[in-house]
Amino acid sequence: MDNCIFCKIVKGEIPSNKIYEDESVLAFLDIAPINRGHALVIPKKHFENIYDVPDEVLTDVIKVSKKIAKAVKKAVGADGVNVSMNNEPAAGQVVFHLHIHIIPRLITDGLKSWKSRGDYKQGEPEQVAEKIIRAL
Amino acid sequence: MDNCIFCKIVKGEIPSNKIYEDESVLAFLDIAPINRGHALVIPKKHFENIYDVPDEVLTDVIKVSKKIAKAVKKAVGADGVNVSMNNEPAAGQVVFHLHIHIIPRLITDGLKSWKSRGDYKQGEPEQVAEKIIRAL
Repeated sequence: MDNCIFCKIVKGEIPSNKIYEDESVLAFLDIAPINRGHALVIPKKHFENIYDVPDEVLTDVIKVSKKIAKAVKKAVGADGVNVSMNNEPAAGQVVFHLHIHIIPRLITDGLKSWKSRGDYKQGEPEQVAEKIIRAL
Repeated sequence: MDNCIFCKIVKGEIPSNKIYEDESVLAFLDIAPINRGHALVIPKKHFENIYDVPDEVLTDVIKVSKKIAKAVKKAVGADGVNVSMNNEPAAGQVVFHLHIHIIPRLITDGLKSWKSRGDYKQGEPEQVAEKIIRAL
């Protein structure tokens, strides 16, 4: 896709620190890492996010993400790894070419997980579950 | 696995608000939601996290996560969705049965993404990339 920075990385028009490449998937270091070793795994073909990616591409990307998560953990001596995909700006997506973040974590890194925003009121989970089931 | 809360949910020994079930995967509402509609997708068989899950189970789980992400977005009118897996306590994992969080996001929810902890020094990305490649 024209003007997509990750498509340009795939084509080699923009440099990157590549760590893995196969026919359909590419992995490289995030240039603005949350921790050292923070990597991105992307499909070479352009899809915007999880909504429009075909299953066969998504499964290629997640299998590579597993490999990369283990390798990053080992390489930087991480105590844990977040594997996450942000879909749409409201969820923190900045580049609109699907990418999975592989974020090595250290017990000492001080990053906090989001807290629960409160439990449901009585009867509310059943209503929300029912709405999701109808949307499936 | 004995004493695993998610294995007990799979067996029906602990109640949950199920939203999806097939032969190998279950999805239900998180009881302590970050936003309303926050769901968890798990393999029925016990695996601890991304390190030990077989590829065929991981791909089943991610394909269902895609379905659930779209359905949750529609059901609660979300502006975006985070799809994420926390591996080990340092990464925020609390229940040691692999689960993918499907977190609906609203532009107005005020949750912040983690910031970059600073760029690499010159020559450092190449060294880190090389270490990861050796660990693959």
